[in-house]
Amino acid sequence: MPHPLFNQHQTLLDGAMQAMATRGYWSPFSEMPSPKVYGETAADSGKQAFESLLKKDFVLDQPGHTGWISPEQSPYGVALDVHYPVCDHEALVVAAQAAMPAWQAVGAEGRTGICLEMLTRLNAQSFEIAHAVMATTGQGWMMAFQAGGPHAQDRGLEAVAYAWREQSFVPAETTWTKPQGKNPPIVMKKHFEVVGRGVALVIGCGTFPTWNTYPGLFAALATGNAVIVKPHSNAVLPAAITVRTLRAVLAEQGLDPNLVTLCVTEQRSTTQALATHPAVKSVDFTGGNTFGQWLMANCKQAQVYAELAGVNHIVIDSTNAYKAMLGNLAFTLSLYSAQMCTTTQAILVPAGGIATDQGHKTYDEVCADLGAAIQKFLSKPEVACAVLGAIQSSDTLARIEQANSGAWGQVVLASETLVNPEFPAAVVRTPVLLACDEADVAAYQEERFGPVAFVVKCADTTAAVALSEHMVNTHGALTVGVYSTNEAVIDAMTAATWRSKVALSINLTGGVFVNQSAAFSDYHGTGGNPAANASYADSAFVANRFRVVQRRYHIES
Amino acid sequence: MPHPLFNQHQTLLDGAMQAMATRGYWSPFSEMPSPKVYGETAADSGKQAFESLLKKDFVLDQPGHTGWISPEQSPYGVALDVHYPVCDHEALVVAAQAAMPAWQAVGAEGRTGICLEMLTRLNAQSFEIAHAVMATTGQGWMMAFQAGGPHAQDRGLEAVAYAWREQSFVPAETTWTKPQGKNPPIVMKKHFEVVGRGVALVIGCGTFPTWNTYPGLFAALATGNAVIVKPHSNAVLPAAITVRTLRAVLAEQGLDPNLVTLCVTEQRSTTQALATHPAVKSVDFTGGNTFGQWLMANCKQAQVYAELAGVNHIVIDSTNAYKAMLGNLAFTLSLYSAQMCTTTQAILVPAGGIATDQGHKTYDEVCADLGAAIQKFLSKPEVACAVLGAIQSSDTLARIEQANSGAWGQVVLASETLVNPEFPAAVVRTPVLLACDEADVAAYQEERFGPVAFVVKCADTTAAVALSEHMVNTHGALTVGVYSTNEAVIDAMTAATWRSKVALSINLTGGVFVNQSAAFSDYHGTGGNPAANASYADSAFVANRFRVVQRRYHIES
Repeated sequence: MPHPLFNQHQTLLDGAMQAMATRGYWSPFSEMPSPKVYGETAADSGKQAFESLLKKDFVLDQPGHTGWISPEQSPYGVALDVHYPVCDHEALVVAAQAAMPAWQAVGAEGRTGICLEMLTRLNAQSFEIAHAVMATTGQGWMMAFQAGGPHAQDRGLEAVAYAWREQSFVPAETTWTKPQGKNPPIVMKKHFEVVGRGVALVIGCGTFPTWNTYPGLFAALATGNAVIVKPHSNAVLPAAITVRTLRAVLAEQGLDPNLVTLCVTEQRSTTQALATHPAVKSVDFTGGNTFGQWLMANCKQAQVYAELAGVNHIVIDSTNAYKAMLGNLAFTLSLYSAQMCTTTQAILVPAGGIATDQGHKTYDEVCADLGAAIQKFLSKPEVACAVLGAIQSSDTLARIEQANSGAWGQVVLASETLVNPEFPAAVVRTPVLLACDEADVAAYQEERFGPVAFVVKCADTTAAVALSEHMVNTHGALTVGVYSTNEAVIDAMTAATWRSKVALSINLTGGVFVNQSAAFSDYHGTGGNPAANASYADSAFVANRFRVVQRRYHIES
Repeated sequence: MPHPLFNQHQTLLDGAMQAMATRGYWSPFSEMPSPKVYGETAADSGKQAFESLLKKDFVLDQPGHTGWISPEQSPYGVALDVHYPVCDHEALVVAAQAAMPAWQAVGAEGRTGICLEMLTRLNAQSFEIAHAVMATTGQGWMMAFQAGGPHAQDRGLEAVAYAWREQSFVPAETTWTKPQGKNPPIVMKKHFEVVGRGVALVIGCGTFPTWNTYPGLFAALATGNAVIVKPHSNAVLPAAITVRTLRAVLAEQGLDPNLVTLCVTEQRSTTQALATHPAVKSVDFTGGNTFGQWLMANCKQAQVYAELAGVNHIVIDSTNAYKAMLGNLAFTLSLYSAQMCTTTQAILVPAGGIATDQGHKTYDEVCADLGAAIQKFLSKPEVACAVLGAIQSSDTLARIEQANSGAWGQVVLASETLVNPEFPAAVVRTPVLLACDEADVAAYQEERFGPVAFVVKCADTTAAVALSEHMVNTHGALTVGVYSTNEAVIDAMTAATWRSKVALSINLTGGVFVNQSAAFSDYHGTGGNPAANASYADSAFVANRFRVVQRRYHIES
């Protein structure tokens, strides 16, 4: 008899399985923060729930508790002052291990049902989580709601559905009957147990504390593993709310809540000790190259699923919608001040300019027109503040200043400081646009995380396509785009992205942006270039998180 | 329209998919070398085909050809003298890369159909391949036929079927239609291309040159990769025949045969250069720990699928079929002189002896009775020679002599030298059985590949179960067994194998042996303990060998 929660959420699971198979549009969790969907009181009560967390201890009742820390500084200047429990990481590992056998015994159906219940609960908390995401990351409200809430939940559900599909292929038992000619057959009973690899560590990032955490968290959990969530020290609250909800669901189900714990630490050494702990068998990581490379080199005992830095870029060959193209790019470069792992950093333009529906445009004109499009798009302060959000880290702020100084190229559009009337202490900056030559490799071929973009002058389109392939192979990319009215150019770019293994967006001029990826349809990362060694989500993202342990014995035929 | 070979072999594929789903008995390739199955002339013509290869050049027409080598020494003393082409490994990599785009373009259905055709051709060559396996590895004829022919083909087919299943989940294209309330929906066309990771290197072993090679070879090939097969230098011929057949099928299909090449070398440095080549993206390896660990530490650019050494073992607690148990173990320890990665090395027996249907047996009696059972089983020379085969390597011979000397424990049964009348130069040895204490860790807790087995005296059954778990966690194991009439002991052993992640055989007393694993039903290795980081075959074995590269663009709704 299936687990009650598996039955209860069967429709949700079926929808996800169907969407994965067709990869058409589907989302069970509404991205509109509408009272019609979430309830008339959801917005207010979510905000109150968030506010009630501030300036006090965030109690989780975890083992090994040694003290409290309050590491977050809001990019909006919101006084958070939430105190999180510091727990001895060894105690968390021991507790995680102790919780795993019962989780294994629940079986794949039970685990799937319970994970779906967790996601449904998180969806009901979308407003509360959105406020926590906005306050800690500096995202604008709409992005915080969508990416922090329903879109993250979609990605978590996607991971659960992939995990279910792979686990469901393993029959619990079989009778193996081998004919022996005229003699009676040999008959064996065989049992196949899906066993999690061990404790999973999920290391979050400071910009998307739920969207980049839920895939690994739910993939590991659904496949039978305990999970320790180690959030970025400046974006703890969204992870803490998530962990508390998951622990509550586990406790309701009579399971040990220590299956999912939060590890808050400002010591890199603690994270390193966890990541290399013999009991830790998988590490999911989103963040910079330095620590990511350290994890891949040192976590010999664990599978590492890493999303690192990259140099996303776009090749512009020609367009029949010049204005719409510029508008699309202006939005892409402005959204959350380009603090997305998918935002374009380099725009490769032929030295001889491009053909457009508004006639030929020189390289300099393209630079100037893009700068003007950004300026125009951000000319209304309320739009600018809603789209830009706030700058998440002082490192990004320093990069903006360095770009503004002209150190990395000629300044086409300088970054400006804006004031957000609602959050006067918010650190708001408009994007910097730089012009440089393809030879200025040191400037544009390193990730400049944040609102720093380069219009790179290339010899011609062929050189730009070749440069794109080279950059993906060498530095990695999560997204690549092309604008061209020439099928041969699109074909060449397509072939280049097959070789370098990166997703390609072609001629985006409407309401879809190169830095957006939709769960169930768009793969986030291919796992095949240096920007990420895994994709959200595919079979490879889940299949090696569990193993099958069989036993067999003779029975009478 | 599906590829003609996909259509042609649809029934074969359907059978494999069905068998994987149920894990009941199934094998499309008959394990009986019967004229009714393989044809009246198959045995003779297969032998002739084998003999026609001897004492001459094995022409493959590969690029980068620099000379010929003839590295094989037959354990049976058969004069092989086959000369294989030595090809510059860089030329093989370049040719492999050049062959991949057309292989990608064939698509998953086409690749699957062509791989099924390859396997069907190999099946028709089973006698020829069996002679090659026997002569190079020292296997007895029946094992050489079964494991070298149909069972290896089964494992290859299993890999193709898993690869097909995972690839078939990826739709070639979709239309993504996102509603926009009262406005027209956003509509995008998306294409999803399955792209192989890159050149695959498959490194074979000296004992099972097809059985341990076909899974990685066909998994990599079916998922869109080129494959370079690097056989063990003493078991080239079975791999060479295989590669020639695969190249022929590719050429017939108008594809570049250099998609599959043979790299024959006696230089470890060449294998190392290949394994760390930037274009090589996966390495399948079966062999010893030293080189296996080297590969895992150094092949940063590739996925490594490794089957290494382990210490397989059995816990004997009690039995209600003492004689049958001893007979089963005697066969296990004798088959191919225990030169199997799955053969039991340590038999853990309580110091206080065991309860049996023939009354209580002391530890010493169990040792003596097992020794006697082996002796009796091998008392007929023709049976002994057929089962034992010949000793494959001088290292194994040295280990037998060291074991015979008593260096590793008290000699219960000494190895003897037998003469095989059919092959007077064959190196034939019976197994050594040693008695030792569980404290003699240095003796029995290291892989002693070949016919060296230990009866290890443990404090009691509980200690034996704990020792089993410890050995699997520390040294790895592909197989573990238990004999007990006590459900509590079987349950404890089952739980121990879940924690340590190893397959368990319970109370084998009939015609199935702990060292046998059947394709489509038994997983070979769990991938979860130090003996192997992957399993034949499961989703994880194939899912990360390809990546999905998407492209998307707006279309009119």
